Amino acid sequence: MTAAGMRGEHVRRSNLSTVLRQVHASPRTRSQLSETTGLTRTAIASLVATLVEAGLVREDDSAERSGPGRPSPVVSVNTTNVAIAVEIAADSVAVAAVSLDGSILAIDRVPRSRQRSSVEDVVHALHGLASSVMAGLGGSLDVLGIGVAVAGVVDPVAGRVVVAPNIGWRDVPLRDLVSEAVEHRWPVGIANEADLGMLAECERGAAVGRRHVVYISGEAGVGGGVLVDGVPLRGIAGFAGELGHIPVHPDGGRCRCGAQGCWETEVGEAAVLRRSGSRRSGGRRALDAVLTRAADGDAVALDALHETGRWLGVGLAGLVNLLNPELVVLGGFFAEAFEHLQPAVLDELDARALSATRGAVTVVPAALGIDAALIGAAELGFETVLADPVGSARR
Amino acid sequence: MTAAGMRGEHVRRSNLSTVLRQVHASPRTRSQLSETTGLTRTAIASLVATLVEAGLVREDDSAERSGPGRPSPVVSVNTTNVAIAVEIAADSVAVAAVSLDGSILAIDRVPRSRQRSSVEDVVHALHGLASSVMAGLGGSLDVLGIGVAVAGVVDPVAGRVVVAPNIGWRDVPLRDLVSEAVEHRWPVGIANEADLGMLAECERGAAVGRRHVVYISGEAGVGGGVLVDGVPLRGIAGFAGELGHIPVHPDGGRCRCGAQGCWETEVGEAAVLRRSGSRRSGGRRALDAVLTRAADGDAVALDALHETGRWLGVGLAGLVNLLNPELVVLGGFFAEAFEHLQPAVLDELDARALSATRGAVTVVPAALGIDAALIGAAELGFETVLADPVGSARR
Repeated sequence: MTAAGMRGEHVRRSNLSTVLRQVHASPRTRSQLSETTGLTRTAIASLVATLVEAGLVREDDSAERSGPGRPSPVVSVNTTNVAIAVEIAADSVAVAAVSLDGSILAIDRVPRSRQRSSVEDVVHALHGLASSVMAGLGGSLDVLGIGVAVAGVVDPVAGRVVVAPNIGWRDVPLRDLVSEAVEHRWPVGIANEADLGMLAECERGAAVGRRHVVYISGEAGVGGGVLVDGVPLRGIAGFAGELGHIPVHPDGGRCRCGAQGCWETEVGEAAVLRRSGSRRSGGRRALDAVLTRAADGDAVALDALHETGRWLGVGLAGLVNLLNPELVVLGGFFAEAFEHLQPAVLDELDARALSATRGAVTVVPAALGIDAALIGAAELGFETVLADPVGSARR
Repeated sequence: MTAAGMRGEHVRRSNLSTVLRQVHASPRTRSQLSETTGLTRTAIASLVATLVEAGLVREDDSAERSGPGRPSPVVSVNTTNVAIAVEIAADSVAVAAVSLDGSILAIDRVPRSRQRSSVEDVVHALHGLASSVMAGLGGSLDVLGIGVAVAGVVDPVAGRVVVAPNIGWRDVPLRDLVSEAVEHRWPVGIANEADLGMLAECERGAAVGRRHVVYISGEAGVGGGVLVDGVPLRGIAGFAGELGHIPVHPDGGRCRCGAQGCWETEVGEAAVLRRSGSRRSGGRRALDAVLTRAADGDAVALDALHETGRWLGVGLAGLVNLLNPELVVLGGFFAEAFEHLQPAVLDELDARALSATRGAVTVVPAALGIDAALIGAAELGFETVLADPVGSARR
């Protein structure tokens, strides 16, 4: 191929990726695709035809007329394309088949004890779960890739779990292990659970279209992510966003990470259980009981959530002054307890954030609930195809 | 002009800007310019000729041979181009003439009382200072623009000081006032003092070439800035980087901003003076005395700085876990007291930052000292010409 031909091929692949990403976000008419991409309608028609041929999108000719001229066909993803999304959390492991339109087709979540599990056992269990999920859906699906969300510090470039105290892992080459388990048939991506939760909320949840976002999620630990001008904050080595380990109470309690008074020690699951008089080892089930008691008006439970909201607000005030975000999304159990947490959160923001930054920000609950990390993990699984829809990985 | 001609003109202006920005950063040979810009040597020669004609750069033909072929002339900025840089701090106002190569040609700094000063008085005083600085330099300089650094929350887009507690201002349209005072002869930019300090450290100081940086500067207040992947963090409305008002000690002292236990209450000037038994109203002079006592081995002064370093480290641990920076730059009096602060800062980082983020970061003193904000302000003054070297503003 000539140099000019190679450049043309490169541009075409880049345009295919752009169009597929658009349609992946939500169905679009050809006219809309032309408008948002700046490509001509002839070019869009050709690109869409290629994507249809590759089985990635389909067109619906029954589109309504939205203006003068011929009706513009609606292009949407072919939902028989799926990613296998995996979540390795403190209390459970889950596997889902997620369609290219972001909907969960099937999910299996099984509890796991918080004792240390060998990596091999977990990978083996996941493989079994994935096989049964896929078998339940029949054979007509095309798997594009695998995404894994891990409750721990992850190096997404190296594909390693650096440390996951709630799982009991340290320096685990998880991407390679998963890849081997599936005999390298699909691309595998791994990332931090909260980073993926934020990604999902930004693409399909409470933060769609927002560019400056703080996401904080209460699970067994406290994780989060930050979107800066539309781009996830990564830092120099991909470890940014460890919100749970910002010191907010330097003389406070000891954190699992070894430090003292991390945000997690004041707003994590253990803090809520402690304040509500529950067994600290009760885990997620005990936390659900606290939420139920609060819904029933139990004063101790309500006070525990109020105090947790207060510390949530203290930490958020710092992030709001530092980052000047437009939106704070509370995920995990913070979303479920939102109505009980919100008043104290806003009081602390009012008291501690500068008026210039306070005035710019809204606090909302996450929209995707407990499945946010899985939906984000699916995006990792789709990434290879989204980046190069008809590239070598598809042949 | 045809559409194609307009596009060509646009590309040429963009290339002129690229070349001037490179040379503004540091002198380059034509070969280096060709390498870093990807433009041909013929194109570089033509662009440089235009910039020479505009009086912005000059070429030195005595360049040494650095490889085979003809020696490549060194292109450097014409240092008769200056910006007028202004700093409005708590204790002083300063005006400097800063050459296009970043060097300060002349500076005049006068103390001001911390009592409220009317904006008009300050602008009037600045105008007088600027006239005398320029007169002292003779008439052969070409002023490209004016940049103003303000110790307060600034909206750089609107050109307004939102609030500056240490100066006693609230909602001041400072850019327009300065612009009127100079009869709109030059473009005027204003920004937060610490944001400009960071900009200067990144362009000409301790953080040259770094992409993930936290800058924190101890002045009367505590300000700072964050560089994320090479871009200053702005937030949704330009107010990001208010590091001084991150809560680090929620039950701590009352802050000037109205909140409690902001970082500034533990590491600001007032905290150092309090801990060292100095008069809190002593201002910068009293702080200098503490540094002198510390240099002489005075135990109370050393303890005061150690405790300040400890709180500096507590807050930095949070920023390191959140942002995963490669470099932390301590500016203002933190730079002057660096040797006394550093041990406690590093101890707290070791204790509180996660190993993944701790391992990635180095802590260094700022390189530009007290003039960092002025050098950054000059960059604001140069911006119009750097963005469009021979554009309408130059005609």
